[in-house]
Amino acid sequence: MKKSDIGIIGLAVMGENLTLNLESKGWLVSVYNRTVAGVEEGVVDRFTSGRAKDKNIVGFNQLGEFVNSLQAPRKIMMMVRAGTPVDELIEQLIPLLSAGDILIDGGNSNYKDTERRVEQLEKKGFYFIGAGVSGGEEGALNGASIMPGGSVDAWRDVRPILQSIAAKAEDGAPCCEWIGGGGSGHFVKMIHNGIEYGDMQLISEAYFIMKALLESSNDEMADCFSHWNEGKLKSYLIEITSHILKYKDADGSYVIDKILDVAGQKGTGKWTVINALELGMPLNLIATAVFERTISAWKEIRIEAAQAFNREAPKKTYVTEQLLVEVENSLYASKLVSYAQGFSVLKQASEEFGWMLDLAAIARLWRGGCIIRSAFLNNIAKAFEEDPQLFSLLLAPYFKDEILNALPYWKKLVSVAVREELPVPAVSSALNYFYSLTASWLPANLIQAQRDYFGAHTFERIDLPRGVYVHTNWKGDGENTKSGSYNA
Amino acid sequence: MKKSDIGIIGLAVMGENLTLNLESKGWLVSVYNRTVAGVEEGVVDRFTSGRAKDKNIVGFNQLGEFVNSLQAPRKIMMMVRAGTPVDELIEQLIPLLSAGDILIDGGNSNYKDTERRVEQLEKKGFYFIGAGVSGGEEGALNGASIMPGGSVDAWRDVRPILQSIAAKAEDGAPCCEWIGGGGSGHFVKMIHNGIEYGDMQLISEAYFIMKALLESSNDEMADCFSHWNEGKLKSYLIEITSHILKYKDADGSYVIDKILDVAGQKGTGKWTVINALELGMPLNLIATAVFERTISAWKEIRIEAAQAFNREAPKKTYVTEQLLVEVENSLYASKLVSYAQGFSVLKQASEEFGWMLDLAAIARLWRGGCIIRSAFLNNIAKAFEEDPQLFSLLLAPYFKDEILNALPYWKKLVSVAVREELPVPAVSSALNYFYSLTASWLPANLIQAQRDYFGAHTFERIDLPRGVYVHTNWKGDGENTKSGSYNA
Repeated sequence: MKKSDIGIIGLAVMGENLTLNLESKGWLVSVYNRTVAGVEEGVVDRFTSGRAKDKNIVGFNQLGEFVNSLQAPRKIMMMVRAGTPVDELIEQLIPLLSAGDILIDGGNSNYKDTERRVEQLEKKGFYFIGAGVSGGEEGALNGASIMPGGSVDAWRDVRPILQSIAAKAEDGAPCCEWIGGGGSGHFVKMIHNGIEYGDMQLISEAYFIMKALLESSNDEMADCFSHWNEGKLKSYLIEITSHILKYKDADGSYVIDKILDVAGQKGTGKWTVINALELGMPLNLIATAVFERTISAWKEIRIEAAQAFNREAPKKTYVTEQLLVEVENSLYASKLVSYAQGFSVLKQASEEFGWMLDLAAIARLWRGGCIIRSAFLNNIAKAFEEDPQLFSLLLAPYFKDEILNALPYWKKLVSVAVREELPVPAVSSALNYFYSLTASWLPANLIQAQRDYFGAHTFERIDLPRGVYVHTNWKGDGENTKSGSYNA
Repeated sequence: MKKSDIGIIGLAVMGENLTLNLESKGWLVSVYNRTVAGVEEGVVDRFTSGRAKDKNIVGFNQLGEFVNSLQAPRKIMMMVRAGTPVDELIEQLIPLLSAGDILIDGGNSNYKDTERRVEQLEKKGFYFIGAGVSGGEEGALNGASIMPGGSVDAWRDVRPILQSIAAKAEDGAPCCEWIGGGGSGHFVKMIHNGIEYGDMQLISEAYFIMKALLESSNDEMADCFSHWNEGKLKSYLIEITSHILKYKDADGSYVIDKILDVAGQKGTGKWTVINALELGMPLNLIATAVFERTISAWKEIRIEAAQAFNREAPKKTYVTEQLLVEVENSLYASKLVSYAQGFSVLKQASEEFGWMLDLAAIARLWRGGCIIRSAFLNNIAKAFEEDPQLFSLLLAPYFKDEILNALPYWKKLVSVAVREELPVPAVSSALNYFYSLTASWLPANLIQAQRDYFGAHTFERIDLPRGVYVHTNWKGDGENTKSGSYNA
């Protein structure tokens, strides 16, 4: 019997679709799924006699037989739930593997787990790749954005397979490139998801303003998003927003107007912000998006509060053309800030963990297959190609001009929203971040003075070299507070 | 020999000062410090022959002798560095203790560690109290804000001792009350520190506006803060800001103008935000404060960026009286939002961990001894007394009126800052939070539509009961995306 090119473990929809995608590219694929009485029974047989029927896909109900069916070095891609299930599966696989075999975790694992597993497997003479896979089930089937990281020595063997099932960017490049060592693949995937939270929040704020101040109809807004999708905002999320706004129920009513304004979340946005905080990096916009989803879930409270505060609808309507230009520019500039923050976190993680991330390559592989795919990632890639050490995207010459062009409209829109009492937390947070980042002086001298006053934390002075920390006896009471005694 | 009432381990400045404070209240105190050659040698002897000379303080260099010197049930307060040192010390103490003895951790421990240690010690028949102590070394000596939580059965024995060294609020109440079980004491202390970050950021933004738009002198600003300190903003941080602004170097120049605008941080703000995120709670203002400290540290980048973007100073100056009223009201309203967010996190933690926190009592014990002590905590306490289940402080009748009074000024100030390109990230974030919390409708329906479109996450409808989740086949392509396949 011919040995398979790759094996897939876990036949939930992502595993099934990746298998079908692989097979369609000419690979012979073995599949395995565990059998849990009453829960996962006959999964493999249903697949091989169903969607996989008459295809070069071989099903196994025994893990050992599955492993033996694979060509050396074995490439096994795990598509199982993140967390303990991955570790359990690894434990089961280890005794069945031969030196040089390659495990790929295609799930949404925490990058710290991946970091640990790479070490664990490499110690035993195997390879481990943590591959973030974005694009959902559609991407899995038709072309995903794939972010592999971990055992670099395994990349040569895995590359043709993973790149064959990746989406292609407009220039034909596969949306799958080697990310870096350890858990970098899953880290980059996490940042992708966080950026997605930010993009969605920004689009919803644009929609909010249009509804509140222009009383635009769904069709008008759909046309507007569709129009924006021909410009700098061109992206998957803008495109589907246009489709969503137009979509009607069987009874002819717009579905969007029937959806409850309570956003769910599954935690990847939250984890992105936690990791940014652990790295000591600002990620204001994504944090705002995560917080805003929670506030949206307080629906009953919001209704009560709106009544208690007698919050009125804006009194005047605005000139459509003018306001729409302001919204478009605000959306664009804020999106830029969000990506600048996200890439800064990647840069910091890269330095901290020694991943040597190629930020331009990461921008390029997000151009297709994934939820945040957009035209503007080309410009981001270019900015990092021109200056791989770029501190912030906002400081790249191209984006600097873009921001300056957008600034008058952006300021205007935030002012209008503030005046009309409309929440634009993400757009407003982005503007403030821009102001802070480009302020030669910030009032942190006062914060340092306060910290020194109550906790003797010491401070640097503008008339002393950097790194020289001094303390002032503010209270003049002869009592010298000692440094570091109060943690603030 | 008479047995001591309490023992203190760890004679860094906090430990020393707490010891002196205890002794001054009539307690006989044993002290112990480890001896580490070259690092911590003769610490105990230096203390007993120095600041503790001729006082009812007994020094020990042997842990066993120290423990034996204490009256049963023994009360031992550890003032050592958080983390492993606490666990190591506990391991050394356990064999020396008798059933019913009480360990108190007065350091800045992570509440999760405290949660674990309470369980560990109780299993062995001992008691463990994690007590957040705020007020720095001055508070330790003259009266701190103390937040004890853990083994409630030990509280009766420990209460008179801890309350004797606590600060007294204006009404004479000791700033030390039982917080709750497990790690609740350290959790509350952590939230205190986060709120402190927020307060400091807000004050620095007020200072920024006054400098940038009024070109106020340090003395003028000092007078202004001093004036505010007689009103609703009355608080320790406002008071010391006034002192700081007036303070001059020996050469007659203002120290505040010599301090580099680069804020340090020791991590408690960051941990507060991470814990809020883990609890799924918005904590926008403190998050902004934490992020802003990092941005302040990018001093060189900011100078370059200011040049690249040719950021100009505001062109016009404003009418002082009018702007100052706007700043004062913005500061007050934003502070309210920050405390509302912080207390909401406490409420959520209380429910999640079963701590049954008395939020009014917590507000009261922050009225003295700690960095965030302020008049306005009386109003917070009152709000929670009137309605212990209050969802958000902003919705309490008293604060509702306060916010409505401040709103016109608050809006005005944020508009002005936006127009003049001045960063007011915390004030602005607070305003947006208020707008979101009081919006009967938020655009989260669009976010739900997007999530359903690309990941089949399903959504609730306004024309169906809550809890009924439906999916729409947006693409109309007959391909039914299955729910939950994409994590966003």
